[in-house]
Amino acid sequence: MSALDQSLLDRFADIVGPAHALRDANDIAPYLRETRGLWPARSSLVLKPGSVEEVSRILKLATETRTPVVPQGGNTGLVGGQVPHAAGNEIVVSLSRLNRIREIDTLSNTVTAEAGVVLEALHRAVEAVDRLYPLSLASQGSCEIGGNLSSNAGGTAVLSYGNTRELCLGVEVVLPTGEVFDDLRKLKKDNTGYDLKNLFVGAEGTLGIITAAVLKIFPRPRGREVGWAGVSSPEAALSLFGLASERAGANLTGFELIGRTPLDFSLALTPDARPPLSGDWPWHVLVDISSGRSQEDARALMETILSDGLEKGVVGDAAISESIAQGNAFWALRENISDAQKPEGGSIKHDISVPVASISQFITRAAVAVESVCPGARVVCFGHMGDGNLHYNVSQPRGMDKDAFLDLYRPMNKAVHDIVRDLNGSISAEHGIGQLKRDELLATAPPVGIDLMRRVKAAFDPAGIMNPGKVI
Amino acid sequence: MSALDQSLLDRFADIVGPAHALRDANDIAPYLRETRGLWPARSSLVLKPGSVEEVSRILKLATETRTPVVPQGGNTGLVGGQVPHAAGNEIVVSLSRLNRIREIDTLSNTVTAEAGVVLEALHRAVEAVDRLYPLSLASQGSCEIGGNLSSNAGGTAVLSYGNTRELCLGVEVVLPTGEVFDDLRKLKKDNTGYDLKNLFVGAEGTLGIITAAVLKIFPRPRGREVGWAGVSSPEAALSLFGLASERAGANLTGFELIGRTPLDFSLALTPDARPPLSGDWPWHVLVDISSGRSQEDARALMETILSDGLEKGVVGDAAISESIAQGNAFWALRENISDAQKPEGGSIKHDISVPVASISQFITRAAVAVESVCPGARVVCFGHMGDGNLHYNVSQPRGMDKDAFLDLYRPMNKAVHDIVRDLNGSISAEHGIGQLKRDELLATAPPVGIDLMRRVKAAFDPAGIMNPGKVI
Repeated sequence: MSALDQSLLDRFADIVGPAHALRDANDIAPYLRETRGLWPARSSLVLKPGSVEEVSRILKLATETRTPVVPQGGNTGLVGGQVPHAAGNEIVVSLSRLNRIREIDTLSNTVTAEAGVVLEALHRAVEAVDRLYPLSLASQGSCEIGGNLSSNAGGTAVLSYGNTRELCLGVEVVLPTGEVFDDLRKLKKDNTGYDLKNLFVGAEGTLGIITAAVLKIFPRPRGREVGWAGVSSPEAALSLFGLASERAGANLTGFELIGRTPLDFSLALTPDARPPLSGDWPWHVLVDISSGRSQEDARALMETILSDGLEKGVVGDAAISESIAQGNAFWALRENISDAQKPEGGSIKHDISVPVASISQFITRAAVAVESVCPGARVVCFGHMGDGNLHYNVSQPRGMDKDAFLDLYRPMNKAVHDIVRDLNGSISAEHGIGQLKRDELLATAPPVGIDLMRRVKAAFDPAGIMNPGKVI
Repeated sequence: MSALDQSLLDRFADIVGPAHALRDANDIAPYLRETRGLWPARSSLVLKPGSVEEVSRILKLATETRTPVVPQGGNTGLVGGQVPHAAGNEIVVSLSRLNRIREIDTLSNTVTAEAGVVLEALHRAVEAVDRLYPLSLASQGSCEIGGNLSSNAGGTAVLSYGNTRELCLGVEVVLPTGEVFDDLRKLKKDNTGYDLKNLFVGAEGTLGIITAAVLKIFPRPRGREVGWAGVSSPEAALSLFGLASERAGANLTGFELIGRTPLDFSLALTPDARPPLSGDWPWHVLVDISSGRSQEDARALMETILSDGLEKGVVGDAAISESIAQGNAFWALRENISDAQKPEGGSIKHDISVPVASISQFITRAAVAVESVCPGARVVCFGHMGDGNLHYNVSQPRGMDKDAFLDLYRPMNKAVHDIVRDLNGSISAEHGIGQLKRDELLATAPPVGIDLMRRVKAAFDPAGIMNPGKVI
């Protein structure tokens, strides 16, 4: 399809008014740039509707005129799902102006928020009434609720609270026809028919546009403690995980595995950062404990877990943060890993999950595969071990030409993902499919599942206007 | 459609072999009788496949010959979803022979079980390896995993562990075409496309037949404590719930509200049952606490919650069970309520949920509505308050003719459900739609949602052979 004609652009622009219809290339540019810089995007129109009704009119017109639409939140996605293709025939619909928190219900423990609410703004709003919205992401200062839902965002607290899907009780969705599916319910139990909500959550804007959602909130923990353990192997980390989850149950809010290489990178990035432990351990674990009772209780629970671990020989050495600042410093070592990879040259990334029991096997086999694709490449393995989710990144060998390394992207991906598939894992645990993994998904997923997805897509978006060429 | 001809029945019977194809009326009868005795069911063939492949061949033939199929598990459903219609043109496919536990993985904390595994057998199997499968239902001695999944069963531990949907990580489904959708994954995080699993869970066998699932298991709690509180009102119970969930978080595994009438009924049923409290309270609360640490810890947590409640004036009186037997006796008072209603005459039942914040308002308004439909009717209100889910049953007035009371079924349902709808609640929190609530759902649910469900049904089961006339 060719670029869009001006009279059609005018009709779309009229719906939101000229101030909210961006047509100047400079105004549009920020909506086309995405973090990874992988996809050249073009568009001649960005619409910023100010109401659900305007979203509805946009999609109705889009269906009538067969105009493809790319919904966008905070534009922080990592798989190219939120930006248009290079052809330039798509319009971008930014939900950022739909940023009202409609209601906080501290008895039902729910917040009803519009798609454009920034995650951090939601955190603050519910903290003001002594509640916690547990979704926590590196991009929380700019990512938006609608994008969180459309990508079923995960983050660091999934272990205890679940991913975005599990935090969402109800949605309001504008369908491609412009009809509004109002399912904004606050119910934890509702068995009245098919689970439509979970189709829209994680659909990356390919079935409709989520305009608002009812999300679960929780009492704020009274105590929190961050611990750090050095262990000899992923198996030992897994034993510690078993021990910690048995003891702490849902009080175990984080369990992050960190390899020696990513820790070294992270320490190198921040000149005044200090290693949590003095010894030299091949693997590290960050443990996060919350308590609804007290700070002392969180501390006692952490002490029990780590001393049990030491006693049983699964932990080599351990430290507990002595202050909130030190706890944050522990977390910073984990969260800075991506940034810390940049000075090390090119990086080939994988966002995978495998059954928890297969993590060790994955790590062993993947190291061999990486070395065979690129001898000397440095494995940067870290992630949410309790969920079986690893960010398995590979930094280039020291001194290698960056472009020559990045030329190995596909064979490296294939080598790592083949092991993931063999272990019945997922090639996208958190970030979604978007453009990045679409071809690979279609080529490698069981055809029966792909066929069912196509049927859903055709049933919900027969005109094919919703974010085409993404996911499916 | 007329009854099925013999040659077609022979073709179906050949798939499973004569021993597992029931054609004698006496053999078939148990598969047609359902607990409520509300739906006259007929069928001339019950098939009991012994493998996924046999299920596949059955559905392939059913699609080719346009033969409607009714999947059945333990036949404990309460809404007529698992029995055929009176027309007699449907075949029943019982999954009971697919009862193998394929794997228990204590590192990933998953169990892979076939549809026909009885819930209690699953409990025992995972207990043998020191794990808990938390789904707990009155019918657990005979209900089966496949039925639990197809009805998204709830039960008494949803507060902490979620309903069946949240306990399920992956499914194996035979589609109407006979194709097998193998999505038996053990992953807590997997963002590779649409959430198909949750469409099959809760679909009551109208989209395909679930033959196996991967379910979450948990470390067994080391301590458990059951408490009982007398309160003056649902508002007071709600305050206690807020206090308990703030303190105990996910350690709060049960919070059941029980009205005075159902408690009196339950006490009358069991001659040696004693009331947990000496005083006369209009409302009662059963609190269940689990701890991964110790029995003492569970006890201390319970004591803190109840004494806090007493101090703040939200609890009138409280007791903590002194033994496992007494804890079980507390639970028995709650679980015997349905049986205890039988000697009291006719009962009109509602399985509803409303936002937790609206529970008090619902109870107040519903009492007025019940009285206006049938003066003197006795409200039997109890249920999972923490989930906003009440079993709002109505027993006939003393001395009234039972049939005359049951003639009020529809106006009573309408009066209660109108309030539920007004409060944005659900007319089926746990039990599903089946035959019982299908007409009401179609007549009262927002048409946009019904239309989406129809599209899903048409996309997955274009021949319309899967459990027709149920749900949608």
